[in-house]
Amino acid sequence: MSETGPPVVVVLGDDRPPLLERLGQAARLRQVTQKGLREALAEADVLLVWDFLTDALPEAWPEHGGPRWVHTASAGVDRLIFPALIDSDAVITNSRGVFERPIAEYVAGLVLAMAKDLPGTYDLQRSQIWRHRETERVAGTRAVVVGGGPIGRATARLLSALGLRTALVARTAREADPDFGRVHGFGELPRLLPEADWVVSAAPLTDETADMFDAATFGRMKRGARFINVGRGPLVVEDDLVAALREGRLGGAALDVFREEPLPGDSPLWQTPGLLVSPHMSADTHGWLEDLAEVFLSNFERWVSGRPLHNIVDKKLGYVPVAAADTPKIEEGM
Amino acid sequence: MSETGPPVVVVLGDDRPPLLERLGQAARLRQVTQKGLREALAEADVLLVWDFLTDALPEAWPEHGGPRWVHTASAGVDRLIFPALIDSDAVITNSRGVFERPIAEYVAGLVLAMAKDLPGTYDLQRSQIWRHRETERVAGTRAVVVGGGPIGRATARLLSALGLRTALVARTAREADPDFGRVHGFGELPRLLPEADWVVSAAPLTDETADMFDAATFGRMKRGARFINVGRGPLVVEDDLVAALREGRLGGAALDVFREEPLPGDSPLWQTPGLLVSPHMSADTHGWLEDLAEVFLSNFERWVSGRPLHNIVDKKLGYVPVAAADTPKIEEGM
Repeated sequence: MSETGPPVVVVLGDDRPPLLERLGQAARLRQVTQKGLREALAEADVLLVWDFLTDALPEAWPEHGGPRWVHTASAGVDRLIFPALIDSDAVITNSRGVFERPIAEYVAGLVLAMAKDLPGTYDLQRSQIWRHRETERVAGTRAVVVGGGPIGRATARLLSALGLRTALVARTAREADPDFGRVHGFGELPRLLPEADWVVSAAPLTDETADMFDAATFGRMKRGARFINVGRGPLVVEDDLVAALREGRLGGAALDVFREEPLPGDSPLWQTPGLLVSPHMSADTHGWLEDLAEVFLSNFERWVSGRPLHNIVDKKLGYVPVAAADTPKIEEGM
Repeated sequence: MSETGPPVVVVLGDDRPPLLERLGQAARLRQVTQKGLREALAEADVLLVWDFLTDALPEAWPEHGGPRWVHTASAGVDRLIFPALIDSDAVITNSRGVFERPIAEYVAGLVLAMAKDLPGTYDLQRSQIWRHRETERVAGTRAVVVGGGPIGRATARLLSALGLRTALVARTAREADPDFGRVHGFGELPRLLPEADWVVSAAPLTDETADMFDAATFGRMKRGARFINVGRGPLVVEDDLVAALREGRLGGAALDVFREEPLPGDSPLWQTPGLLVSPHMSADTHGWLEDLAEVFLSNFERWVSGRPLHNIVDKKLGYVPVAAADTPKIEEGM
């Protein structure tokens, strides 16, 4: 750890983040990959986890000391919640504010694509076949969005705007929510699932949410309902999802996140009928890297001047509690 | 024409509409195809154009007399606006109220599919390739919806709900519109097109709108903008659209309607890069035939009891004027 001079900011990742040249003399920047990580952490004041899919941190974390502040260019912090970091004094912050709207739009696009059978239309176009089909109206159908954080909330709001009757399900039930009235608790899922035409997973990965979408959950869903996961891969027991699709219990599904990423080339998921596979990209719209850099830079300014940081993760919960509504507003351009 | 007894209702089409058994003794139903049309029209009081893609009417229309009321199971009435029918005393009504919401959803789905590159994702999935791409945020982008009727309005409303900055363009400019504030006139298109990221054609086919999307129109659009047609095929000069796509002026397009339908198997449109082809199905969600039958039955009840009909088409304009806002509300299930 540096005793004098500007703080040492270690950036973990293969790629250099944009905009960090703005730091100028205010920080000593060190870009490292997994290779130099252990040595860099020993002298780091701040760690910016730019490659947020890295699994390198637990092994490289110093036994004593280490960065006082860890910021991740992601919403989920599941890869940062390892014992040594939890037990340390380090503050963890995430990139809440960047991903909500793009992910909500992506989910809305998937819902409409499935309802209107766009995949079927692409296949028929490829074969130059004109075959009229009746499709589905989404207005009035029922959606359950699991995940009470900003991504789940933004998704539920946008599905509501499309006319879906949308229930938001969070770890803890809440009344008098300004957007949704009642927010349901995880315990109410068994009652809500049989009514839903759409079930969207947008929850953080925690001990409580791991494997929550398994055979039992899919078994409670309405026959023909659709499932979408934009949360984290390990929320879903992938074999159970494939089985539910194959036996026709589910009418379709879309996964943007997977237990193993990149999804191996020989995974059966690629060719499961009725399943759309996309490469963890729902949040990543043009400019997202700049947006992520801005979130870090704004927090860095707060850190050096001793003001409270935005987006502080509750290490025990594994996410930023909603009550900590100090997230800087990202312009939605409206 | 029948002089006594229940009115003769001629249904034109290969398929029998649902629900018409409800008419019971209140009508004498005759189902005909192109073949028996001329004879049937001579004794018809009412013509229900169930096969709304037929071109058989102009030739079969009687020189004198003919049905007093013609109802079409469509929104567009372009196939009914031929001189003999215009000059006749027959009232024309359409099926306004059935198609708005499904078409609006379909357009929203196309916008999101293009912004999120779903076609690219399908192609990569088929090849089992994990390739992350950055996509587009739709919130804050600009859409121009051409067509001030209920379909254009519903589409513009839904795109606005998705966060697009949406301008509605109609034949006649209007101020103080309850939904949109200002509705622009066709004359303002040259000014609006260069700003738009999305241009949606949802206009009726009239002398004024035929061929309105041609090389000149595409030439005014922003480089990389997308074009969607859910109106009628002849609004678009298809060769000009293909050229605009091939030279990269347009970033993508989707056509649900065509100058010739079904689109011939050897049309170059099927394989034009960046063009989505669907078989005139944007409006047709499960239950649409029942909805169409309900619209006719409700109007039939009004007709036999001498009350004013809903959805009366202005024969000169070629559509139901918006001011005639007597359209029965179709439940959106919200």
